[in-house]
Amino acid sequence: MVDERSDPNTLEEIQEDVLGVSQETIRELESALESHQFERVREILLPLHAADVAVVISYLAPEIREDLVDLLRPQFNAEILNYLDETLRIEVADRIGMRELAKALRNLESDDALEIIEGLEEHQQIAVLKGIPAGERVILEEVLSYPEDSAARMMQREIVCVPSFWTVAQTIDFIAKEEDFPDAFYEVFVVDPKHIPVGTVPLGQLFRHPKKSKIAEIMDRDVKKIPATMDQSEVAILFRKYGMVAAPVVDDADRIIGMITVDDVVDVIDEEAEKEILHLSRLTESDFYSPVFETSYARLRWLLFTMINTILAATVISQFEDTIQHMVALAVLMPITAAMGGNSGMQVITVTVRALATKELGSMNMMRVINKEVLVGLLNGIFCGLLLGGLAAIWFQDLPLGIVLSSAMIFNMLWAACAGTLLPIIIDHMGWDPAISAGPLLTTTTDVFGFSVFLGLAKLFLLS
Amino acid sequence: MVDERSDPNTLEEIQEDVLGVSQETIRELESALESHQFERVREILLPLHAADVAVVISYLAPEIREDLVDLLRPQFNAEILNYLDETLRIEVADRIGMRELAKALRNLESDDALEIIEGLEEHQQIAVLKGIPAGERVILEEVLSYPEDSAARMMQREIVCVPSFWTVAQTIDFIAKEEDFPDAFYEVFVVDPKHIPVGTVPLGQLFRHPKKSKIAEIMDRDVKKIPATMDQSEVAILFRKYGMVAAPVVDDADRIIGMITVDDVVDVIDEEAEKEILHLSRLTESDFYSPVFETSYARLRWLLFTMINTILAATVISQFEDTIQHMVALAVLMPITAAMGGNSGMQVITVTVRALATKELGSMNMMRVINKEVLVGLLNGIFCGLLLGGLAAIWFQDLPLGIVLSSAMIFNMLWAACAGTLLPIIIDHMGWDPAISAGPLLTTTTDVFGFSVFLGLAKLFLLS
Repeated sequence: MVDERSDPNTLEEIQEDVLGVSQETIRELESALESHQFERVREILLPLHAADVAVVISYLAPEIREDLVDLLRPQFNAEILNYLDETLRIEVADRIGMRELAKALRNLESDDALEIIEGLEEHQQIAVLKGIPAGERVILEEVLSYPEDSAARMMQREIVCVPSFWTVAQTIDFIAKEEDFPDAFYEVFVVDPKHIPVGTVPLGQLFRHPKKSKIAEIMDRDVKKIPATMDQSEVAILFRKYGMVAAPVVDDADRIIGMITVDDVVDVIDEEAEKEILHLSRLTESDFYSPVFETSYARLRWLLFTMINTILAATVISQFEDTIQHMVALAVLMPITAAMGGNSGMQVITVTVRALATKELGSMNMMRVINKEVLVGLLNGIFCGLLLGGLAAIWFQDLPLGIVLSSAMIFNMLWAACAGTLLPIIIDHMGWDPAISAGPLLTTTTDVFGFSVFLGLAKLFLLS
Repeated sequence: MVDERSDPNTLEEIQEDVLGVSQETIRELESALESHQFERVREILLPLHAADVAVVISYLAPEIREDLVDLLRPQFNAEILNYLDETLRIEVADRIGMRELAKALRNLESDDALEIIEGLEEHQQIAVLKGIPAGERVILEEVLSYPEDSAARMMQREIVCVPSFWTVAQTIDFIAKEEDFPDAFYEVFVVDPKHIPVGTVPLGQLFRHPKKSKIAEIMDRDVKKIPATMDQSEVAILFRKYGMVAAPVVDDADRIIGMITVDDVVDVIDEEAEKEILHLSRLTESDFYSPVFETSYARLRWLLFTMINTILAATVISQFEDTIQHMVALAVLMPITAAMGGNSGMQVITVTVRALATKELGSMNMMRVINKEVLVGLLNGIFCGLLLGGLAAIWFQDLPLGIVLSSAMIFNMLWAACAGTLLPIIIDHMGWDPAISAGPLLTTTTDVFGFSVFLGLAKLFLLS
């Protein structure tokens, strides 16, 4: 077995295979668009999967992207929107026009149509809903009344429900004859007369039991019902934890109103992970497809926190101008304490935020986790403090200076461990998202303490 | 609809519902274990899903965890291991003993058994494989011969394959009679005489076509075959991109050797996202369950880079000791340039690394992305530089000082934008993982440039 990574040619091939569109195809398309050979463009796009058309749209330069979308407008396949990044989705939807879009949406399943409508701006949503026939519109509006990121927003309404007193044969007949079924489904839900789910039967089991068996005998009674208002991240945890494939969504009265399948969960996991990754680096959402000014503005808002942070740090340092004047070595060493505190604290925050997100950290094991992190912080603080303090003492031929640096580092790294565990727990407890605010808050404190403790100790012990 | 987050009681309830085990259950179990009421412990554990037993094991303190595992040893349900974090999995497996474990593994499907064996240390793997009957062992060893993180390691070998000339009735009969089928499957694979997959039939379709239809007529011919050596992250991209539910895995000769289902992909997406999150904060793997010394050691290795970084920065600053001596304001302001460069650069790196991981960034759009990032960097550099430079000029009543700070910030943030895009692209091109090394490399340069450009300009223009 060869490792593909080592051979760029193979990697290209694999990429082409995986991503469905080769570079040549995109280049050919670009030149066809530029030379207005629209027949050729249609020929190239015809065999492509909606996901691949989305890839092509993403790769094109903004100018010719619009030409391509114009070509796609008649008989637009709305599924393409589902595969586009949110920024591009809004742009392409605008170009297609809301009336055409409403027409295109009627061919999709309810959860796919909903996902596209959700991804639009509010004024676009209103315009699109107007173009959808009243019957379907009422259903979509009902689902849209549930909070964003709730289970109801993930579910599809096309489901297969049967009563438990039916036989296998009746169920198979029902499936064969019903018209409005989802294209792909894997599980039959068993409901009681009040439409409350009481069991599930994986499709495969229908083949493997005698036709006369009652559904009640073969169904799996361990149904995990998902409340319509449950947060999507909790739905994802549930699916992942139990390795589930499909689950019924229920309303306040426990009645089944739809189902969530594992492929919907894949998108959520992806979305939640992306959020966590972006928040760690102080970004709100991926701006890969946003134009320059929008990107610049979104990032500036976050850089504002860094600016406030640096101004605070500068204010702290300015309190010790005299001290630094007397001993410039302090200016050389002072960034060390702040940097080590900040970096070790971010390690603690990342582990804690992850454990909170996956519910591995709860009130049961909180004290144990805090104890452990404080111990680790103390150990690493002592190790790094002695090492860098020792180096500083040798470098500047000044043992007291080394001792001051060591002490300040141990203090700051211990603080980083405490705050790195407690801040996310407290922020989570208050109902906010620790992934966003815990990091910036922590580095502000490790900067302020890093500079003030080091310079303060130096003023007290080295200059008196 | 009430937002559960606002009401802690409801949240507790939901958590209990979602996570299957309530705090009371765990507390009761703890006290039963402590008072050696082992009958009671068994009663509590009996109705729990393997995933919930894993939760219980994770929450318990290390001392009583061992007692619980001892109780579980007779008739150990190996599935529990599948739901444990890797650290705990190795610990529990050791406590159970390799012979008992081999016995327990025989009841699992091939991909589940494999996942557990993979998660063990090498000496544990060898010991477990010895305890498994030769027939199954050969199969497991064959799969283990594929590279870690390859598609072959994710697949299960239990699949349903039929030739395309069969009828729907023959296929249904085959499914009804075969013994060795997976418990849950959603798709029938259609193969040619050489066992090369040529189509798929979703199970639901078997009900919805006449019994006499040929499989060839109803099958979906758009099969995405997955090479056995494909990297798991690419498999995840493929499933996500096309919203797939199951896909055949093929060997070098294109013959079907197993299948991957979307629930296997959920784990991979999760794993890949976790890796990216941890690497951003300079951690190798989650150490949430590792003991203190192990955690401390793993984190120290990464902090070493920060230490080298700070020593480099200190060396740079020490070159300007005279300059700082003459103008202490420089010491107050110098952390600003480094911090703003580092933070804006990390934003760029995060977006670039994500786009590389999801294959949204390729050679086709590379130049466009670089151009955009440089423009954003310039814009934000000018904005932040003028703002903070202006503030500094007012604070120290020194316009030239403000101009020097502005210039240094613009330079450093522009550099951060260039390096933040190019470093991940170059590192990725060389076949390494940009998520690991791009961040530390970038902040080293933004620190060094931040200090040297600011202090260098100050020396040139302010002190002459």
